[in-house]
Amino acid sequence: MKKIRISIIGFGAVGQGVAKVIKEKREYLKKKNNFDLSVVAISDSKGSYIDEEGVDLKYALDRKKEIGTVASIKYSGYSGLEVIKKIDHEIVVEVTPTNIDNGEPGLTHMLTAFENSRHVVTSNKGPIALYYKELCNCANKNKVEFRYEATVGGAMPIINLAKEVLAGNEILSIDGILNGTCNYILTRMEKEGYSYEQALSEAKEIGIAEADPSYDVDGIDTACKLVILANSIFNKNATFKEVEVTGITKITPEALELASKNDHVIKLIGEVRKNVLCVAPRLIPKNHTLAVGGTLNVAFIQTDLAGQITVTGKGAGSIETASAILSDIICISKNLNSN
Amino acid sequence: MKKIRISIIGFGAVGQGVAKVIKEKREYLKKKNNFDLSVVAISDSKGSYIDEEGVDLKYALDRKKEIGTVASIKYSGYSGLEVIKKIDHEIVVEVTPTNIDNGEPGLTHMLTAFENSRHVVTSNKGPIALYYKELCNCANKNKVEFRYEATVGGAMPIINLAKEVLAGNEILSIDGILNGTCNYILTRMEKEGYSYEQALSEAKEIGIAEADPSYDVDGIDTACKLVILANSIFNKNATFKEVEVTGITKITPEALELASKNDHVIKLIGEVRKNVLCVAPRLIPKNHTLAVGGTLNVAFIQTDLAGQITVTGKGAGSIETASAILSDIICISKNLNSN
Repeated sequence: MKKIRISIIGFGAVGQGVAKVIKEKREYLKKKNNFDLSVVAISDSKGSYIDEEGVDLKYALDRKKEIGTVASIKYSGYSGLEVIKKIDHEIVVEVTPTNIDNGEPGLTHMLTAFENSRHVVTSNKGPIALYYKELCNCANKNKVEFRYEATVGGAMPIINLAKEVLAGNEILSIDGILNGTCNYILTRMEKEGYSYEQALSEAKEIGIAEADPSYDVDGIDTACKLVILANSIFNKNATFKEVEVTGITKITPEALELASKNDHVIKLIGEVRKNVLCVAPRLIPKNHTLAVGGTLNVAFIQTDLAGQITVTGKGAGSIETASAILSDIICISKNLNSN
Repeated sequence: MKKIRISIIGFGAVGQGVAKVIKEKREYLKKKNNFDLSVVAISDSKGSYIDEEGVDLKYALDRKKEIGTVASIKYSGYSGLEVIKKIDHEIVVEVTPTNIDNGEPGLTHMLTAFENSRHVVTSNKGPIALYYKELCNCANKNKVEFRYEATVGGAMPIINLAKEVLAGNEILSIDGILNGTCNYILTRMEKEGYSYEQALSEAKEIGIAEADPSYDVDGIDTACKLVILANSIFNKNATFKEVEVTGITKITPEALELASKNDHVIKLIGEVRKNVLCVAPRLIPKNHTLAVGGTLNVAFIQTDLAGQITVTGKGAGSIETASAILSDIICISKNLNSN
């Protein structure tokens, strides 16, 4: 049985999620697909844990939990970049934190992986929102695959859905709720009459909003995702600085109440179509397919042949995001296995 | 530029839809994908129209409209089966009418295509609802692809979505509205207080229901689609005779009114999960994602990792169905082009 060797670069919530799902599903996937997914290296900011025969994923997860790093004494200080360059493997799972200033360290990790003929699967939005064309060109030049379903919508399928399953269609527009934190806050304001501050504070308490929530509530996260959709599906060459962005911080319970009286809700909508790249709160009819509540994400896709298609799913969560990464890994592995 | 040669076997609404979308999008698709889709033969029950350099699709569509057949004098009586055997081409688009008694003539067309090393794309439910395993085995043996997204949900993505985009997930269950005619009738009964007969008669008038609507309203169409989902996504080996089926003909406006008072609607739901394969009218909460109206189709997918995913789209229409066929053609062509 063919072994597909994988590195996990970055071992935060998503990286650990990937380790967990591979650990739990390895035997099932072996039977189903006739190839074996073997993680040969895991790196975090302190170093690496490497075993070319396959690392012990349970040990890696336990060690991370106990001492805060996965690095073994032998490979303490051995960086993700060195793993990408020096350890023999097929697929790099790049899941370091998103950096929207310069895309690093993800950008260098991805380019180095391509140059070393390794495929890349990622949930890291920064490099793609800033350097999409450069990354695709480098992957093409080195004849490797670059997949990033997990960057938009978490477990909600959108990129591969639009590019592959709907390949016969021209995508005319996508409107979506792409940030679960904002959707949760707006839903609670609408249902409970909370102020923005009350809803935000509740979201923080239950772990849906970060201590510094500005990346979400100011619409930056949605803007990054929109740029990824624009570039990958609409073949644009946009960066997130070009997106018109308005966040949700100025929305009042009174505005939501007034909307509700007219059978509408207010949602933070990202919109991409020809010459439009915009994130803003919008009035949505209560019975519209975009009007989903809680932390759900939704995408409303207009196509030239298939008409309107809506897809809804969980926009966040480490296991949900890991599931999108695992699907991309399997897609690449199937191609490797058939060659 | 690589030429991908295609035959269209069956030239009813869907076959003509395929010819139309290839005619309209050929240049666009050339630029986008770097291969050229060339239809080299079209067959209907009276004969064929063949040009190994590529047929004139506008002429074929006009001729069919004017004289009721696409067959040229030279190839009058030359059958689809002969085209599949004797004309050099890569992809057979099998779109003859669905036959749920023995799957013919689609079944023989598909098996013959595989045996002649041709890939098959189809919207024909009969052969797959009856002989799924045999078809897959034959395709595998001959190392060709077999794609059938258009058999379920029309333009609503479901099969390739579940098998490819969600490949990392185990699909635990699918509940769906898979028949637009039934959904239209139930929606009109609910909104207008119509009796079943009134709603059916309106649906016939506007071309949404057939003169003999039993295939739709008795749930047989939904059952066939369910079997295709069960076999292709859940790896079962079911036939449509095993499905427990109840149609919508006995639903009264009173039942819908009572449901509505309790914030529910009644929908014809197909349900597949472990040991369950069932089509029946079910009470659905009005705010549930399954409660879509009109002729829309919807699928509610439960997965082990990604949680719940819902997808909604147009379940019928010749162009919509053709779009799913075109997407499958492009997927195969991309693989051919990269080899």
